[in-house]
Amino acid sequence: MTALSYPEPVTVPARQARSVLLRTGDRVRITDVAGGQVGDVFAYNADDITEYHSAAHTRTHTSRLFPTLGEAFVTNRRRPILTYLDDTSPGTHDMLIAACDPERYAAYGDPGHASCAENLALAMAGHGYPALPHIPQPINVFMRIPVGADGDLSWFAAPTRPGDAITFRAEMDCLVVVSSCPQDHNVINGAGPSPLTLTVLPATTEEKIR
Amino acid sequence: MTALSYPEPVTVPARQARSVLLRTGDRVRITDVAGGQVGDVFAYNADDITEYHSAAHTRTHTSRLFPTLGEAFVTNRRRPILTYLDDTSPGTHDMLIAACDPERYAAYGDPGHASCAENLALAMAGHGYPALPHIPQPINVFMRIPVGADGDLSWFAAPTRPGDAITFRAEMDCLVVVSSCPQDHNVINGAGPSPLTLTVLPATTEEKIR
Repeated sequence: MTALSYPEPVTVPARQARSVLLRTGDRVRITDVAGGQVGDVFAYNADDITEYHSAAHTRTHTSRLFPTLGEAFVTNRRRPILTYLDDTSPGTHDMLIAACDPERYAAYGDPGHASCAENLALAMAGHGYPALPHIPQPINVFMRIPVGADGDLSWFAAPTRPGDAITFRAEMDCLVVVSSCPQDHNVINGAGPSPLTLTVLPATTEEKIR
Repeated sequence: MTALSYPEPVTVPARQARSVLLRTGDRVRITDVAGGQVGDVFAYNADDITEYHSAAHTRTHTSRLFPTLGEAFVTNRRRPILTYLDDTSPGTHDMLIAACDPERYAAYGDPGHASCAENLALAMAGHGYPALPHIPQPINVFMRIPVGADGDLSWFAAPTRPGDAITFRAEMDCLVVVSSCPQDHNVINGAGPSPLTLTVLPATTEEKIR
């Protein structure tokens, strides 16, 4: 036992998802262990999964494509669920692109490939929700999808360095699912899918995050 | 009776929604009667409403914030449902902003105000779907939400002139719901909510659309 009061980090293996339950005020730090890895982040109200993070509502709330530090991500009921608290990465994150799913890989001629949508469904099934009514649009941390002046989107490799991390604070009790994106048919994950870690820093922890 | 083989236009009264059932190849023209009015457009597979137009999947499919003429809008199963066929408007449309909903107007201190989300739910209830599992992000025709270089979104009045129209072709049998957006707490609907019309041009119609 150490003197630390918070749990050990959870490893999100490459191509898989893991989840953490946060109480209001808890923080979760998502670390890109090897660099160049996209994480698909989903957040649900812990007490009612019909309320969940909604990218469209967050854009409406912030009048931005992606929040700035200190701003909140909101749910489909327009309530803050996560705050963008800290970031040691280059700060490129996406909130425009859908989670990869079986149909995406079927179109590549690669049926049966792991996907963030299936990873989410599996994680939620493990929490007692075997049939999701739909797959919300994720927060794609570390993903680099610049928007051109005429609205065109480019797809680049995640620019994250080993150990770069983004931290969110929970604004309600919530279930956060993070998928280490299995995409290996385009460049977004650089050298290929690799693990992330999730570190929960409870609300009572005084330690500085960085 | 006239010689015309297609039905009369459907009026979408200000602050309300109406729907049309399209067969594959049918076209629907949405006309802004007085100008300056946003329409929230939703599209569902007519045979299975768990498949519906998904803004996030369409951005992923087109690598654009909004399709260009001739490109398709796709569903949450990555199948084309509508094609952006013709446009006599200034061509500013939005696919970033959530439908207005009761929570939006409650935040303005105006509970009970009509909303596009409730208009959609009411329209779908009329088709035998009384409980939607969620409100998809709409295609907001005529809405002017320019994106700045740093990802900031601005809210402007719809620049549509009286009679301007956008036309979609159905790529599957689909139920299209259009809400004349009731928003009157910001500038998006210019002088205030006004009607739209929906004109269905069946696949067999030879007439040129414009």
